[in-house]
Amino acid sequence: MGYQVSNPLFGEDIKRSFAVQSIMGLLGAELNLVEPGIVEITIAYRKELTQQHGYLHAGVVTTIADSAAGYAAYSLMPAGSEVLSVEFKVNLLRPAKGVTFVARAEVIKPGKTLTVVRADVFGISETGARELVATLQGTMFCIAHAQGFGTAE
Amino acid sequence: MGYQVSNPLFGEDIKRSFAVQSIMGLLGAELNLVEPGIVEITIAYRKELTQQHGYLHAGVVTTIADSAAGYAAYSLMPAGSEVLSVEFKVNLLRPAKGVTFVARAEVIKPGKTLTVVRADVFGISETGARELVATLQGTMFCIAHAQGFGTAE
Amino acid sequence: MGYQVSNPLFGEDIKRSFAVQSIMGLLGAELNLVEPGIVEITIAYRKELTQQHGYLHAGVVTTIADSAAGYAAYSLMPAGSEVLSVEFKVNLLRPAKGVTFVARAEVIKPGKTLTVVRADVFGISETGARELVATLQGTMFCIAHAQGFGTAE
Amino acid sequence: MGYQVSNPLFGEDIKRSFAVQSIMGLLGAELNLVEPGIVEITIAYRKELTQQHGYLHAGVVTTIADSAAGYAAYSLMPAGSEVLSVEFKVNLLRPAKGVTFVARAEVIKPGKTLTVVRADVFGISETGARELVATLQGTMFCIAHAQGFGTAE
Repeated sequence: MGYQVSNPLFGEDIKRSFAVQSIMGLLGAELNLVEPGIVEITIAYRKELTQQHGYLHAGVVTTIADSAAGYAAYSLMPAGSEVLSVEFKVNLLRPAKGVTFVARAEVIKPGKTLTVVRADVFGISETGARELVATLQGTMFCIAHAQGFGTAE
Repeated sequence: MGYQVSNPLFGEDIKRSFAVQSIMGLLGAELNLVEPGIVEITIAYRKELTQQHGYLHAGVVTTIADSAAGYAAYSLMPAGSEVLSVEFKVNLLRPAKGVTFVARAEVIKPGKTLTVVRADVFGISETGARELVATLQGTMFCIAHAQGFGTAE
Repeated sequence: MGYQVSNPLFGEDIKRSFAVQSIMGLLGAELNLVEPGIVEITIAYRKELTQQHGYLHAGVVTTIADSAAGYAAYSLMPAGSEVLSVEFKVNLLRPAKGVTFVARAEVIKPGKTLTVVRADVFGISETGARELVATLQGTMFCIAHAQGFGTAE
Repeated sequence: MGYQVSNPLFGEDIKRSFAVQSIMGLLGAELNLVEPGIVEITIAYRKELTQQHGYLHAGVVTTIADSAAGYAAYSLMPAGSEVLSVEFKVNLLRPAKGVTFVARAEVIKPGKTLTVVRADVFGISETGARELVATLQGTMFCIAHAQGFGTAE
């Protein structure tokens, strides 16, 4: 869509922020792609990540979708900003089956304060077939540098 | 609200199902309360569960809220059913600070096929003060025994 | 909940704003209650407001729920502000049957920029029995006076 | 996407159902396009449809988005079915300005019982320029003929 980038170092900033999202390490999630307004996060299937039927838990699906969505929004924010999730809605479309999963987030509408993002999560089989297992629609908040963190909402 | 229970063993069934939700073990989540239409799940703060600012990641908040919501719905379903999340929406109200967190889910509207549930997540400080950090509104699907799992949607 | 009011004329401001929401006149909706953080809007059943089965259309249910939610948030905003809906999610719980309907909105979490609100919509029968037909969870945006309208997002 | 159609008369059925959605007449909404899994509804700007700033009310935006979404789902359902909205979430992206508006709904995931749909609402200016003003993500329920209406949920 040709989004306008105001922070030329957004890629570095996202990598650094991702590296300190400890939950990503615990889950084994990885940053796969970072472009203006688009971020992908992948995760490999492991038994430790499942719900009662052996599929990836909806919460894990949401965790990578939310982080991808947040960083997609962050890629378009000014240098020195922070990003917070305001809200998201997730539809679980199919049981989350796959050997790996990728959450691909794209900004729908950037904004000075609020950015609306969509993230699709695909399950990828051993043969490489992709199936959409969930889709997230959410809002991200930009905390500008000068505001200070405490004034976030 | 005096919900009608059709499976007298719902408490046992929920405990057994929770025990095989492997993600709960990885996160350190515990089943705190199981009543007809109401379920609570708790989790202790650990650095491994955080986002980039050191707060509990919204995905972890959602994971315990979704599981609590699913089991609250499940408590009112017939014996032999399975429960799946259809969708949920989460508003993140404040940074998820606390030494422990509790997700408390309550059924708003039970149904034969679909059950609507709300879950509030509270951060609990060292002094025991509770603060609402997120609220989830979602829909759960009942797969009746006779249907078989493949016909879920 | 004892919300803090910063605009002592909030009641007048809401009535004036409601009076110029032309859609409320077209639908026949009325402002029923205005308190700090709480607003009710009512509407009478009319054939013109229905969907294909003769129930109140989900869009009409949402219209009064959204306006009630917006004004509940607005009641806590500073004088001279404007309020806009950021997003909402609605669960339709039962067919919207009734001779009148009331949308009751309550602020869950006020904030300087974003306020999170819930609104329940009840159908009221001829005998006065109330039934919850829908519930909305949404986010409202405060445009402070000095910002000007164009900078809303 | 090449959705599979099971009711060859879906177009006629949607037109007939739309014609008895009385609210569409009150608002002046029209069925613009009906294809398998895709439905468009248009509405012309009128002062009677506005909120307090003179833009189309979010509830009106939602009403046409929800109906378009419901009929997009309905187009893929078996003959003799009925469709009901389970839930939807709407992000309001920009003030709803335009001389006309079009809600375009597309099925994301059809299902025997539940169908997930997205609907985008565009404002169209006098020069024909389109701007995305809102996006809806929702779930529709199929009531199969044999079930009877009362067993909907």
